[in-house]
Amino acid sequence: MLATADDFFFPGLNIPRSTANSLGSNVTLLDVTKIAGLNTLGVSLARIDFAPYGLNPPHTHPRATEILVVVEGIIYVGFVSSFPANRLFTKLLYPGDVFVFPEGLIHFQFNVANTTGVTFSGLGSQNPGLIVIANNVFGSTPPISPDVLTKAFKLDKNVGFQRSIIAESLFTAHGLWMFYLEIVFTPWVVAVYLLIKSSQN
Amino acid sequence: MLATADDFFFPGLNIPRSTANSLGSNVTLLDVTKIAGLNTLGVSLARIDFAPYGLNPPHTHPRATEILVVVEGIIYVGFVSSFPANRLFTKLLYPGDVFVFPEGLIHFQFNVANTTGVTFSGLGSQNPGLIVIANNVFGSTPPISPDVLTKAFKLDKNVGFQRSIIAESLFTAHGLWMFYLEIVFTPWVVAVYLLIKSSQN
Amino acid sequence: MLATADDFFFPGLNIPRSTANSLGSNVTLLDVTKIAGLNTLGVSLARIDFAPYGLNPPHTHPRATEILVVVEGIIYVGFVSSFPANRLFTKLLYPGDVFVFPEGLIHFQFNVANTTGVTFSGLGSQNPGLIVIANNVFGSTPPISPDVLTKAFKLDKNVGFQRSIIAESLFTAHGLWMFYLEIVFTPWVVAVYLLIKSSQN
Amino acid sequence: MLATADDFFFPGLNIPRSTANSLGSNVTLLDVTKIAGLNTLGVSLARIDFAPYGLNPPHTHPRATEILVVVEGIIYVGFVSSFPANRLFTKLLYPGDVFVFPEGLIHFQFNVANTTGVTFSGLGSQNPGLIVIANNVFGSTPPISPDVLTKAFKLDKNVGFQRSIIAESLFTAHGLWMFYLEIVFTPWVVAVYLLIKSSQN
Amino acid sequence: MLATADDFFFPGLNIPRSTANSLGSNVTLLDVTKIAGLNTLGVSLARIDFAPYGLNPPHTHPRATEILVVVEGIIYVGFVSSFPANRLFTKLLYPGDVFVFPEGLIHFQFNVANTTGVTFSGLGSQNPGLIVIANNVFGSTPPISPDVLTKAFKLDKNVGFQRSIIAESLFTAHGLWMFYLEIVFTPWVVAVYLLIKSSQN
Amino acid sequence: MLATADDFFFPGLNIPRSTANSLGSNVTLLDVTKIAGLNTLGVSLARIDFAPYGLNPPHTHPRATEILVVVEGIIYVGFVSSFPANRLFTKLLYPGDVFVFPEGLIHFQFNVANTTGVTFSGLGSQNPGLIVIANNVFGSTPPISPDVLTKAFKLDKNVGFQRSIIAESLFTAHGLWMFYLEIVFTPWVVAVYLLIKSSQN
Repeated sequence: MLATADDFFFPGLNIPRSTANSLGSNVTLLDVTKIAGLNTLGVSLARIDFAPYGLNPPHTHPRATEILVVVEGIIYVGFVSSFPANRLFTKLLYPGDVFVFPEGLIHFQFNVANTTGVTFSGLGSQNPGLIVIANNVFGSTPPISPDVLTKAFKLDKNVGFQRSIIAESLFTAHGLWMFYLEIVFTPWVVAVYLLIKSSQN
Repeated sequence: MLATADDFFFPGLNIPRSTANSLGSNVTLLDVTKIAGLNTLGVSLARIDFAPYGLNPPHTHPRATEILVVVEGIIYVGFVSSFPANRLFTKLLYPGDVFVFPEGLIHFQFNVANTTGVTFSGLGSQNPGLIVIANNVFGSTPPISPDVLTKAFKLDKNVGFQRSIIAESLFTAHGLWMFYLEIVFTPWVVAVYLLIKSSQN
Repeated sequence: MLATADDFFFPGLNIPRSTANSLGSNVTLLDVTKIAGLNTLGVSLARIDFAPYGLNPPHTHPRATEILVVVEGIIYVGFVSSFPANRLFTKLLYPGDVFVFPEGLIHFQFNVANTTGVTFSGLGSQNPGLIVIANNVFGSTPPISPDVLTKAFKLDKNVGFQRSIIAESLFTAHGLWMFYLEIVFTPWVVAVYLLIKSSQN
Repeated sequence: MLATADDFFFPGLNIPRSTANSLGSNVTLLDVTKIAGLNTLGVSLARIDFAPYGLNPPHTHPRATEILVVVEGIIYVGFVSSFPANRLFTKLLYPGDVFVFPEGLIHFQFNVANTTGVTFSGLGSQNPGLIVIANNVFGSTPPISPDVLTKAFKLDKNVGFQRSIIAESLFTAHGLWMFYLEIVFTPWVVAVYLLIKSSQN
Repeated sequence: MLATADDFFFPGLNIPRSTANSLGSNVTLLDVTKIAGLNTLGVSLARIDFAPYGLNPPHTHPRATEILVVVEGIIYVGFVSSFPANRLFTKLLYPGDVFVFPEGLIHFQFNVANTTGVTFSGLGSQNPGLIVIANNVFGSTPPISPDVLTKAFKLDKNVGFQRSIIAESLFTAHGLWMFYLEIVFTPWVVAVYLLIKSSQN
Repeated sequence: MLATADDFFFPGLNIPRSTANSLGSNVTLLDVTKIAGLNTLGVSLARIDFAPYGLNPPHTHPRATEILVVVEGIIYVGFVSSFPANRLFTKLLYPGDVFVFPEGLIHFQFNVANTTGVTFSGLGSQNPGLIVIANNVFGSTPPISPDVLTKAFKLDKNVGFQRSIIAESLFTAHGLWMFYLEIVFTPWVVAVYLLIKSSQN
């Protein structure tokens, strides 16, 4: 069957996608499943829509590097290098700024403006793939065994969240003593306070 | 030397580039020479500015496929398949429309709106290259031998332009009889008319 | 400088590596930084040691597929396909069993035996890279902004862990009602109980 | 179906191909469409026949580098580097001389001998493709819009060929004043001469 | 058809393969023909079993580099660089030692222990191929013409083996004068001795 | 340093190379070590000269497929597929005939004419490499251990050549009973004859 111009065409990427979801973002990826003519040609294109403060959460493209240009919004971006450095590279991007996310590395884009955001990206594969870490690790079908997840993320079944690698991260990063105390200790403090108080009665 | 976030960054692609040239277009290509962090990563990004009726003339990227999205303007695009078919694929693109130009094929983008045009493109190489056919073939340094060019483009030294493959193309495509006649015959017609007339005197 | 046989050699991969860490596993990756002769040759090798119930936690190799053979232990392995399916593929591997983890996909290996485990893997790049998700996302230097992480993983600052995507995952997967209640409600229940009790006094 | 030796075979490349065409050249390209066994193997072969003063006009191979050896004739060859240098590399080749044309760059071969010419080329793809610039740009099916071509090649509809990038090229390269004047001005000179003369009568 | 975990699985590589053959070795190669999920993923795995003093004879993988780890035995390994140096790189490997055999180069593995040997290898292609030199050159179906082989290996039809490149190799390497003499001269010496003796009678 | 046309040029491949060697052939390979401009471009070129009945003996190119055209001579060519089939593909080539030798497979070219032969080949790598089996296996520096070679090629130290895989090959292929007997038995037959005779005296 003879190819036609429509095999190389996709319309309507100017139309804002809905960001009415918990993260406030929406990725439209035009890969070979959307544009058949891309087959074997090694490139694809994506639009990302952001609500005010919308987040495209940490993710990877297993088979492609991404180069992104900001069209609207103020986008705080970052990627983390691989083992053992795990070094974070970040930049605050304004409209017209361009940033590169190397193949397979975990990266994120966060619209820190109180207006909507839009970006366009070129990706170096006709089938780059998309792995949203949170959904992929914690929302697969069927789920990954909690034995694996609690151990990997240091989630202690008995004391829950507070000693986990996640809590450590939040704690270390921003000195969130109050946050940490609030989550972990407040109920116990209240309880102990009440216990003491009640025992005093 | 340790890499930094700036090795993956380029600012200001939102600023319109000047299109005050004979073609009314301007290509800004962010390849590995502009963003060092792209090295080995297989992707790059381009912005094209168009004046009203501006043209990005027929060109190729010798080492990359291009996927383009229109941001402003109405862009008439096309590429030509290779020997022996030389089949032209064209599409009229409105803002938000996306089109693919396969690796190494000659293609063009023409803003047919009377407003400015802007597009962004992803390209599947950190060093895609750019060959503007007219400049490359007819404007190299030093120039290609006119013996080669006149023969290749069927430019007859004696009768000039009119029987060339170029004139044939313009002639065939749009039935430009008047144009053709005007160029080739008018002076002679005038001359002959005058000669006859003068001889009558 | 002339190459010698030692440029293609690395000794001692038979010696068990220490698994005295919180996860009970240890990856020894022989890539081009360990064996210079691998340069441009597109392959590398890894040994993984597991303590009893040791876990090589969810991770990816950004530039390589992995093929693994179990030498000792009973290894529960899995990988998750990319967006949107996020489909989990798992297998319980006994000594001599072989499993493939496709390039860039998140995968894990969990020794479910109460004896030590050992595996060997071939990887299809001289520089496959290793991204341990938990460390990379929650332990980078500097840390990723907690604004990004709390939003991505649905960690609510006020109520902490319990509504997060992580808790949902653990909850959904195994009906861990008791675990869930224990973490979130116990202190409050105690507190409220005590409050009521004290108010009764 | 089992492969046979004939899947890797093509006979008769010693037989001169007809060069009875306007350019005086003929390319015989043995790619995967001619030799099925080349599939995935990344190489192909070409024979070019040249009439005396025959030209293989400016062309590109979109997916392969070419390495050529001259068997007969004296072949003037050249390729032009990409934007922005557009630098011309040329060499006069005698039988036994070898030259390389890098992937995707525009190049030509011109037999400057008054005898026939023959060359053989290896190309680094089983499907290198061939784009003859003149035919591809000016002879596609359907034709490229003359609005695009006249603008790209600076062909002025009113005054035709003479101010075009093409005429500039021929003019600049060889100081062809007489040629230039002959094409553009002669008829008008004659006409004006006659007009003056007639008005004198 | 949806992929399943079994598409990425192969069992039983712990089971020793029979080495009851003339070489005392057995290669089990898990390529894409054995594990369908390896398709396009660029890696494969092999187990080699060795009898005491078993040999995996000189061979190449036409499309992959190999990285090998010794599990049992003492394995003398080597590869030879290409023309013109033909330089031999060798190493005596003990359990846990790792060695690299670059793509396409001829290499061998020889168990010099009087116990069985086992190795595992990663190979950088899902279809690396295996060419056992002796079988491929001297045991093809149909056989290569003896005119080719005798000339290539300098086997003289009249005087047989003794002046061949093979005999030279054995001779040069180890000063095997006695061996050489035994093969070539002994019968003649005996014959001549007897001839002299008989003539004396 | 700016590239020049000479970086893409090599002269004199028309000059016959000396075939005054034991095989009667000579390969001139123009790879990136001979033409610097080939770097990264993925192609190279070779000329092979053949004496009458000259042989380019069994060899491989570890990193490239070869496509060959015969210019002079009658060339009997062949390649052998990989394990386990070891299937021989052969063809008798006359001037103008083209044949493909897939990457990494062992192949040969044998001029069966009593005139000189010449071929040109394209190879799909700027650094294809050349492994002449006989020299590489039996003529490396230092030599491969005779323990490896005698075992691999089934050369029995006590009875020498006659039961080897090589002799089997020659024997099977052409029913060379007489040849076989001559090499192995003749001296003994003479000896025994003489012994008997002498004992009769």
